[in-house]
Amino acid sequence: MIEEKRKKLAMIVFSGDMDKLFAAFTIAAGAAASKMDVTMFFTFWGLRALKKKARTGKSFLGRLLGVFYGGDISRSTPSKMSFGGIGRWMFKKMMKAKRVPSLSELRQTALELGVKLHGCQMSMAVMEIPQETMIDDVAQCVGVAAFIEQAQQADITLFI
Amino acid sequence: MIEEKRKKLAMIVFSGDMDKLFAAFTIAAGAAASKMDVTMFFTFWGLRALKKKARTGKSFLGRLLGVFYGGDISRSTPSKMSFGGIGRWMFKKMMKAKRVPSLSELRQTALELGVKLHGCQMSMAVMEIPQETMIDDVAQCVGVAAFIEQAQQADITLFI
Amino acid sequence: MIEEKRKKLAMIVFSGDMDKLFAAFTIAAGAAASKMDVTMFFTFWGLRALKKKARTGKSFLGRLLGVFYGGDISRSTPSKMSFGGIGRWMFKKMMKAKRVPSLSELRQTALELGVKLHGCQMSMAVMEIPQETMIDDVAQCVGVAAFIEQAQQADITLFI
Repeated sequence: MIEEKRKKLAMIVFSGDMDKLFAAFTIAAGAAASKMDVTMFFTFWGLRALKKKARTGKSFLGRLLGVFYGGDISRSTPSKMSFGGIGRWMFKKMMKAKRVPSLSELRQTALELGVKLHGCQMSMAVMEIPQETMIDDVAQCVGVAAFIEQAQQADITLFI
Repeated sequence: MIEEKRKKLAMIVFSGDMDKLFAAFTIAAGAAASKMDVTMFFTFWGLRALKKKARTGKSFLGRLLGVFYGGDISRSTPSKMSFGGIGRWMFKKMMKAKRVPSLSELRQTALELGVKLHGCQMSMAVMEIPQETMIDDVAQCVGVAAFIEQAQQADITLFI
Repeated sequence: MIEEKRKKLAMIVFSGDMDKLFAAFTIAAGAAASKMDVTMFFTFWGLRALKKKARTGKSFLGRLLGVFYGGDISRSTPSKMSFGGIGRWMFKKMMKAKRVPSLSELRQTALELGVKLHGCQMSMAVMEIPQETMIDDVAQCVGVAAFIEQAQQADITLFI
């Protein structure tokens, strides 16, 4: 019996916007459901998708960033029509009306389907977001070389 | 005589910004002109690129979204320097001065070169944009699995 | 002795945001350090990454664009929390504290590792940014067909 080689998807998630995270996790879960190996690398604003509710930041600027851009995945706002939080409320309501899962439910589904989540070490250092403030499901925090290695072997590569 | 296998491009168009749509259709038309099979999947804000002028939305929030983000492809605004519509006017003028085609002309060229346009079913449901409000050239409205299938076989995959 | 075929990365840099340029050059330099052939195509706002400090624009609108979006790579602002320049200052300070190189240092590293930088002819014409206002390291200014050709052969393709 010959086992077919699984196809691979490597994704960089740079954005922390609600709508883009939604697209990222939908594609990731969809690919995993189609028997692909899926690896997501979260960098910069995308790190929010891996965070617990915990406050972050050590230096003055780091804490400031933690306040302005704090919170976990449920606090992300859409890239358009944000309106100081109204957009988030609106989209959550519209998604619920169509029985679309929430972002954290979608992330959970992705994890259950075997999607691997990685944080970018350099962004974590610069933005002062330590691994302790991230959800336990984060596989490992890695550098750019690890992404390059995965992406070289991938059948699909996306930057979101 | 052996027919060479055509190369494939699969593109997700998430953005509805004038400048990003311009990039998306330029790449799509360019690839089709180079004898590639090109498939574009429009999701979220990108759905605007497929819309007629018709108003959308059924629920209160859906109608509100339709008003704030209504209109067809010609109403898209640039991602930077939007200035409440001045940016759109400015870029249109600058593009015309260099004899660059408009967005709807560019979309028409892409279609004539065989580019296939698909809408994302889930976004259409959530944003309450029914297929009747879309241009007739939209091939089919599909789910994420259809994109994954195309992207697996593609030589180039982009998220815009 | 057989020389192994080098893997290729083709990247479109559409964004001129500080944080996205940072991601783009980090990935490019990382890939080049992993012995990949890397080609970056700068279009629209991304052209800033190739500019000298020189003012651009010939027509009234072109000059206006040059003023509002002028400056070289060091004048780019983050895509979030820009706050009229405060965000740029903040991120520069936070990056320096972690000994992360500046954007122009990172671009220099990429160049030294053999990364090739191209400007998009059409955007340069529309935005009235002539090649004389760009740094000398820009390899060539090309059209979309040149990108498609590179991307077809690439192992990784990204749109940033």
